[in-house]
Amino acid sequence: AKTFANRGMSLEEDLNITNLYYRNEELAFIYKKPTPIKVVKMQYLLKKSIIKEGYFEMPSTTDYNGLYNGKYIDFDAKETNSKTSFPLSNIHIHQINHLKNICKHKGIGFIIVRFNLLNMTYLLLGEQLFSFIDNYKRASIPLAYFKEYGYLIPYNYLKRCDYLKVIKDLEGIKYEKENK
Amino acid sequence: AKTFANRGMSLEEDLNITNLYYRNEELAFIYKKPTPIKVVKMQYLLKKSIIKEGYFEMPSTTDYNGLYNGKYIDFDAKETNSKTSFPLSNIHIHQINHLKNICKHKGIGFIIVRFNLLNMTYLLLGEQLFSFIDNYKRASIPLAYFKEYGYLIPYNYLKRCDYLKVIKDLEGIKYEKENK
Repeated sequence: AKTFANRGMSLEEDLNITNLYYRNEELAFIYKKPTPIKVVKMQYLLKKSIIKEGYFEMPSTTDYNGLYNGKYIDFDAKETNSKTSFPLSNIHIHQINHLKNICKHKGIGFIIVRFNLLNMTYLLLGEQLFSFIDNYKRASIPLAYFKEYGYLIPYNYLKRCDYLKVIKDLEGIKYEKENK
Repeated sequence: AKTFANRGMSLEEDLNITNLYYRNEELAFIYKKPTPIKVVKMQYLLKKSIIKEGYFEMPSTTDYNGLYNGKYIDFDAKETNSKTSFPLSNIHIHQINHLKNICKHKGIGFIIVRFNLLNMTYLLLGEQLFSFIDNYKRASIPLAYFKEYGYLIPYNYLKRCDYLKVIKDLEGIKYEKENK
């Protein structure tokens, strides 16, 4: 049932539901940023203003950010229909640079990649993403790389894409290491 | 000269310049969120898509957030032409609730209020904002309250609204207290 439960829901919808769950439970306050729009023409009526001409603009950062237990969280989420790899052309260079800045300045930066046809969603930390880009000079990240260096994100009905579970476990590991 | 230097620049423009400075100097990565827009009608052309009907929506959070030295920063910025007080009607209840959540979960949440005609810009931490709302039952926050519980934000040419200076000093104070 688990394999089929997710059919038809986009990763964005799953993340919206998950983030809403996190907020309602007061676990985290993470939002998708609105798409930036360049407004060219407006019409002003008595009680409302209507955008009559506008264009979608390229976002300068990632799509999601927020707060989790005092920590700054920042990520982008992408889907692919490939069964074997994730094309890096899906992420813009300025988004990668943004994530680099976030990781360098002690934020938690990562990407979430869903392999639609495999129904598997991975979290890949910024460090592993940059490491791949720097070392492999390839146009796409193989699924095997996600399996080795990424983390499979658990699915459940309330938390469709429970990425904080992964972060929580990782922070736990770090915490242990620091205190050894 | 300082009093006049700022004339004609809106608080939003000053914050854009300041945040850009912070990013270029790698001090902080704080952005204004795009205004959410509900798109009702699109026109699809060969090389571009045009929004033909859209409406501005109410933002569900504050306007600014980001990362400063591992810390999550979140604030809203408002201007007033009053010389004596800041009308609370300028901030929506869901924005106040959002800031409450941020402060409760160890983020740094605040508001920035510029008194245009006095050319003074204050930072008021969430705690002091909530405390005023809970204790005074008034429709506006008097300037005297900002003077007593807020922090005057320094102005300079590169950092038009150097609010991180205030945060840095406050974090320094906290750090000292914790280590005494």
